[in-house]
Amino acid sequence: MGIRVAVAGASGYAGGELLRLLAGHPEFALVAATAHSQAGSHVTAVHPQLAGLDLTLSPTDAAGLSQADLVFLALPHGQSAAIVAQLPESVKVVDLGADFRLRDAALWERYYGGAHAGTWTYGLPELPGQRELIAASDRVANTGCYAATITLALAPLIAAGLADPADVVVVASSGTSGAGRSAKVNLLASEIMGDLSPYKVGAHQHVPEIKQATGATSLSMTPILAPMPRGILATVTARFAKEGNPRDVLAAAYADEPFVHVLPEGAWPHTAATSGSNSCHLQATVDVDSGRIVVVSALDNLGKGAAGQAVQCANLMSGLPETTGLSVFGVAP
Amino acid sequence: MGIRVAVAGASGYAGGELLRLLAGHPEFALVAATAHSQAGSHVTAVHPQLAGLDLTLSPTDAAGLSQADLVFLALPHGQSAAIVAQLPESVKVVDLGADFRLRDAALWERYYGGAHAGTWTYGLPELPGQRELIAASDRVANTGCYAATITLALAPLIAAGLADPADVVVVASSGTSGAGRSAKVNLLASEIMGDLSPYKVGAHQHVPEIKQATGATSLSMTPILAPMPRGILATVTARFAKEGNPRDVLAAAYADEPFVHVLPEGAWPHTAATSGSNSCHLQATVDVDSGRIVVVSALDNLGKGAAGQAVQCANLMSGLPETTGLSVFGVAP
Amino acid sequence: MGIRVAVAGASGYAGGELLRLLAGHPEFALVAATAHSQAGSHVTAVHPQLAGLDLTLSPTDAAGLSQADLVFLALPHGQSAAIVAQLPESVKVVDLGADFRLRDAALWERYYGGAHAGTWTYGLPELPGQRELIAASDRVANTGCYAATITLALAPLIAAGLADPADVVVVASSGTSGAGRSAKVNLLASEIMGDLSPYKVGAHQHVPEIKQATGATSLSMTPILAPMPRGILATVTARFAKEGNPRDVLAAAYADEPFVHVLPEGAWPHTAATSGSNSCHLQATVDVDSGRIVVVSALDNLGKGAAGQAVQCANLMSGLPETTGLSVFGVAP
Amino acid sequence: MGIRVAVAGASGYAGGELLRLLAGHPEFALVAATAHSQAGSHVTAVHPQLAGLDLTLSPTDAAGLSQADLVFLALPHGQSAAIVAQLPESVKVVDLGADFRLRDAALWERYYGGAHAGTWTYGLPELPGQRELIAASDRVANTGCYAATITLALAPLIAAGLADPADVVVVASSGTSGAGRSAKVNLLASEIMGDLSPYKVGAHQHVPEIKQATGATSLSMTPILAPMPRGILATVTARFAKEGNPRDVLAAAYADEPFVHVLPEGAWPHTAATSGSNSCHLQATVDVDSGRIVVVSALDNLGKGAAGQAVQCANLMSGLPETTGLSVFGVAP
Repeated sequence: MGIRVAVAGASGYAGGELLRLLAGHPEFALVAATAHSQAGSHVTAVHPQLAGLDLTLSPTDAAGLSQADLVFLALPHGQSAAIVAQLPESVKVVDLGADFRLRDAALWERYYGGAHAGTWTYGLPELPGQRELIAASDRVANTGCYAATITLALAPLIAAGLADPADVVVVASSGTSGAGRSAKVNLLASEIMGDLSPYKVGAHQHVPEIKQATGATSLSMTPILAPMPRGILATVTARFAKEGNPRDVLAAAYADEPFVHVLPEGAWPHTAATSGSNSCHLQATVDVDSGRIVVVSALDNLGKGAAGQAVQCANLMSGLPETTGLSVFGVAP
Repeated sequence: MGIRVAVAGASGYAGGELLRLLAGHPEFALVAATAHSQAGSHVTAVHPQLAGLDLTLSPTDAAGLSQADLVFLALPHGQSAAIVAQLPESVKVVDLGADFRLRDAALWERYYGGAHAGTWTYGLPELPGQRELIAASDRVANTGCYAATITLALAPLIAAGLADPADVVVVASSGTSGAGRSAKVNLLASEIMGDLSPYKVGAHQHVPEIKQATGATSLSMTPILAPMPRGILATVTARFAKEGNPRDVLAAAYADEPFVHVLPEGAWPHTAATSGSNSCHLQATVDVDSGRIVVVSALDNLGKGAAGQAVQCANLMSGLPETTGLSVFGVAP
Repeated sequence: MGIRVAVAGASGYAGGELLRLLAGHPEFALVAATAHSQAGSHVTAVHPQLAGLDLTLSPTDAAGLSQADLVFLALPHGQSAAIVAQLPESVKVVDLGADFRLRDAALWERYYGGAHAGTWTYGLPELPGQRELIAASDRVANTGCYAATITLALAPLIAAGLADPADVVVVASSGTSGAGRSAKVNLLASEIMGDLSPYKVGAHQHVPEIKQATGATSLSMTPILAPMPRGILATVTARFAKEGNPRDVLAAAYADEPFVHVLPEGAWPHTAATSGSNSCHLQATVDVDSGRIVVVSALDNLGKGAAGQAVQCANLMSGLPETTGLSVFGVAP
Repeated sequence: MGIRVAVAGASGYAGGELLRLLAGHPEFALVAATAHSQAGSHVTAVHPQLAGLDLTLSPTDAAGLSQADLVFLALPHGQSAAIVAQLPESVKVVDLGADFRLRDAALWERYYGGAHAGTWTYGLPELPGQRELIAASDRVANTGCYAATITLALAPLIAAGLADPADVVVVASSGTSGAGRSAKVNLLASEIMGDLSPYKVGAHQHVPEIKQATGATSLSMTPILAPMPRGILATVTARFAKEGNPRDVLAAAYADEPFVHVLPEGAWPHTAATSGSNSCHLQATVDVDSGRIVVVSALDNLGKGAAGQAVQCANLMSGLPETTGLSVFGVAP
C-alpha cells in the first residue's frame, strides 16, 4: 500500500493543499488527517475542492498519527513540540510550522515568544548540501513561505560574494492564503479586494530565519498583503560586494534543479505562472540608477512555500525521486 | 513512446491548458504544438506557467500535425474544417471549437455564419450512451464550456420527465478566460475587476447546442462575464413537468461518474472548488416561492469546459482509462 | 448649522458609506455616530478611508441620537424597534434595516423570525406616488439592496401589464459588502477571490419584500456572491402578459428620474459603472429563443442599494432637493 | 457660467476621472472634451460610469480647446507640445503627461526619446513653496503617479537631513489603470487577476522625475503591476543620514495639508482607503534589523496621482480654494 502518511492540521489552507497533493501522489497513502474544531467533519465540508475524496477528519492525537510512517504537521506555531513528543521515534516528521527552524533560541523567544523547541534539519533542498541532509533526516523543519521565496533569490549571491550581506532590502507581497484561514475582519474579501496593505512593517518574525538561511547580516523586509489568493512576489535588492553578473550566478546555482527556474533574459517572474505548482521563478538584473542588484522571485506560498516543499522533503526522506507527485507547471490563467 | 498527440492552436488559453495536461499525461506524448502569430516562439514566452517545458511552437500545417496519432484542435471558430480536410483519415481528431457540434445546418449558419462543416460525435461522455459512441469515434466535437455546464445540470431532469423542456431559464457567469486571449479594451483588467457585465443578452450562439444536448425546446440564457480568470457558474431553473426530487434524479444519473459530483444536501457548488480540475459540481432544490426546479452547476471552463473534457474524450478514443492524466480535485483557495 | 443628523450603527459598511456621504453633504450636519463594540474608537480606526474626519464613535443610546433632527439606523435586523421606541416622535428616522418594510406580519415572522415591528413608508422614491409619501413621512423604511435592484427593473413592467406577475425568474449577484462586515470564514478573501458562490438558494428572505414592491405573485430568486467589493447585477426575466416593448416602458417610467438610467439600446448595465454613485442602470430586451422579457439592472449595493438611497429619502423628508449630496456618476475603473 | 475648462484626451482613464471630477466641480464649466479615435462618440459609450452626462467627444484641435480658460491635457507622452503651441498664451494649461516635467533635457531624451519640450512649474502643491509657484503659473506639469506617491513620502526626509539621498530603495505597486487603456494581452483581466508582475525592472522612466522632486541622488525603484484597478502603494526605504524620528518629520511637514495624512502611530496606509479620493496616506518607522527608515505611501493613481492632482493645481491657478470639487475621503470598501 505504499508509504503511510498522515496530516495533522488538515483543515487550514496548507493542510488542504497537502491533502490535494497526497491524493495524487503515487507512493504515499494517506492514513489519517486530523483537525481541531473540524474533527468529525467530512473533508469536503472543509475543503469543497476535494469532492470525490472519501475522508473524515479525526482529532489530533498521537495514537492516530502513529499509524503513519511519516507525519506532516501543519499546526499553528508553538504546537508542534507537544505532539512530536508523543510520536514514536520511528515516525518521520515534516513540520510546516516555524517551531524547529531557528538555531538561535533567543531569537525564537524574541520573535515568537515561548520556549524554543529545538532545531531540525532545514527543509530547503536547493541549498548546497541540504538535499543530502534532508534525505538522511527523520525530522525536517519546512521553510516558511517568505523565507523560501527570498532565500532562493539571495543565498547564491551571498555565497558567491556578489551581494553584500550587510545591505539587503526586501519588499515581498503575499496572497491572502499566507495569512491563514482564521475569521478576521481585516482578511474579509470586502477589505482585501482592490487593496494592498503592508503589515508588521519594520519587524517581521521571518527575518531571523531568512538571515540564517541566506547568510545576510542586515536585512530590511517589508511584507504586503495582496489581493490574490495565492503567490508571493519578492523584490530582493542588495549592494554589490564585488563585481559580477547576478543572473549568471543564479543560473549556475540552479542549472540542475527541477523546481527552480531562472527565466530567459528579459522575462520577469510573476506569481500566477507558479500557482498550483512547486516551482520558483527567478530573474536578476542591475539597477541602472543605483547600481544595486535586483532579484525578483515568485512562487506559490501554498506550493513551494509550504505543502509542495513539504512533499519534496518527504520524498527525499522516503527515498523516492524528489519530484514524485509534484507539478513543475502552474495553473494559469 | 506512447500515443503521439498534437495541439493546433496552442497559444490561446485552452491551448495552454491542453499543454499543461498533456505534459503531465502518462500515455500521451506531445509531438507538435502549433500557433499562428506565435509560431517560432518558445512555449514559455507564450505560457510562462510552463517554465521547464522545452517546446517551440510551430506553424499550423497539416504536415506537422499528421505525425500525431491524435490531434486536438483549439482554433478560432470556422477554421477546423480546412485543416481537418488535409489530415489523413487515420489521425483521430478532437475539435474544441464549435464547428462540428450542431446537427442543424441552418442554426449553424444563423448563429455562427458561414457554411456548416458537418456533425461529429458530441464529446460529453456523461450523456447516456455517449461514452461508447466517443470511444468508437475518430472525430469528436468537444462541448462548449457553457453547454457542458448547463447540459450536465439539465439533461437528466428533462430525460426523467421532471423538467419542462419548454420552460427553462438559465443565467450563467463565466470567468474571463472563456472570452479568449484577444487584446480587447472590454477585457482589460481595469474594466473587469470589480465588475459584472452581461453580454449577448437575448441571443447567445450556444443556445442551439444546449437545446440539442439537453432536449430543451425553449431556453432563455443570459451570459455574464465575472471578475475571475476561470470558472462557470450556471443557475438553471425549469418548471416541473411532473413531481419528483431533482436532486435524486441527478444523484442517480451521476452515481458512477468520476468527474460529476452531486454535492451533499445543503452544500452548493462554487467555481473555485473546481478550478484546475476536470470536475463538475451540482446541487438542486425546489424554489419555495415559485415552485420551480433550481439547479446550480459549476466547473472550470478551461478544464471540464474545454481542455480537460478534450483529454477525457481522447482517453476514450485511445482505449485508455477515461481519467488518465486528469485531476478530480480543484486547486483552492 | 443645517439639519442635524445622526447615524446609529456606523461601524458597518453601510454605516461607513453613510458617514462618507454625510461628510460631503452641504445641508446635513453630523452630530453623532454610534457603534456597539467599536464605541469609543476614532472613526478612522474603523473606516480608514475617512482619514481627515475628526469623529469618535459613541455608544448607541437614545439620548445621543435624540440630539438629531433625523436619525439613520444601520443596525442588524431586529434591533430598530427598540431604539425607535426611545426616540422622541419629533425625530425623523430612516431605517436601513428590514424591520419596517413588510406589510404582512406572518411573512416577517416566517422569513426573519421574531415579532413584526410594524410597517413604515417604503423608501423607494421612484415608485409612482412614493416620492410624495416619503416627503410627508417621519418614518421611512429604506429598501433592501436586492429589492431596490430588482424592483426598479420589474415594477413598471408589471404595472404596465407587460410582464406576467406570476412568472418571474431572477438571478442576482452581489458584491461582498452586501454580506456585511462580520468575521466569517466563508467571507474571507481567500475563499471569495476567483469564486462565484450561490447562497440561500430556493428561499431568500428578500423575496416577500420584492413581491410586495413589484406586484409579482410568483418569483424565483437565486442570489450569488461575486468576487467584488460592491455592486449588484440582477437578471430579471418574465413571461409576456401582453405584447409590448419592455425598454420603452422602462424609458417612459424613468424619463425624469435623476438616478435611474435606461441605457442606450445595445448598451448593457454593468456594476462597476455604478460604483460609488446613487445611480441604477437598466436595459431590457426580448430573448430570441424563449420569447421572455429580459431586464438587467445594476447598482451599488452600498449606494442606491443602501446609504445613497437613505440620503435620498432623508433629503425628501427634510424638504431638500432630492439629489443633494449624492453623485450620479460612478467611480470607474 | 464659471471658469471654462476643457479636457484633451478624455477617452483614457485619467481623462474619464477628470470628467467625473469636473462634472461635480462647482466652479469649473466643461466646454469641450476631446478624443482621437473616439471623437464623435457620446461620452457614455466610452465612460459608462458617466451615464446622465450629456456630452459628445470632439476631435482634439486647438480651435475647440481655445474656447476654454484652462485646458487639461491627458495625452500620450510626447503629444503635448504640438497642441500647446497652437493655444493662445492666455489659455492656462495643466499637462498630465510627462513632457514638461524634467529640467534635464538629456535625461528626457534618454528615458523618453524625442526632443525635450521644455520645463514647466512642477504640479505638486505640497512641496515647500510650490503652492505659490503653481498659483502664479499659466503652465503646470502635473506629477506622475509614481512620482507623487514617492515624493510625498521622501522629500521631507531628505530636506530635513534624515534620509541619505544616496541610498534610497523603492518598491512600488500600481493598479492597472496606471498602465492605461490600451488593448494589450498582458493587461487582460485573465492575465492580471491573481497575479503580481514586475516590469521595467532596473530602469523605470520615472526615476529622473523622482530624483528631481525629492533631491535623491541614487534611487533603486522596482515597479509592480497589482491585481486591482486603482491605487499605488510605495515602500520607500533609506539609510539614516542623521538621527531623528521620520514620522515626526512627515507629520510636521504635512500638519496643515488637507490631502496628505500621516496616519496615527501603528496604522499603515493601504490603497483602498484612498480610492476615489485626492488623499495620500503616509506612515513611517525604523526597521528593527537594518536600521533603515521605512515609509509607506498610498494614493489613488487616478486621483492624487493624476486627475485629482490636476484639478488641485487648476484650482490654485484659478484663484479658487485648493480643495474645491475634490474629496478627502475614499470610497471603500
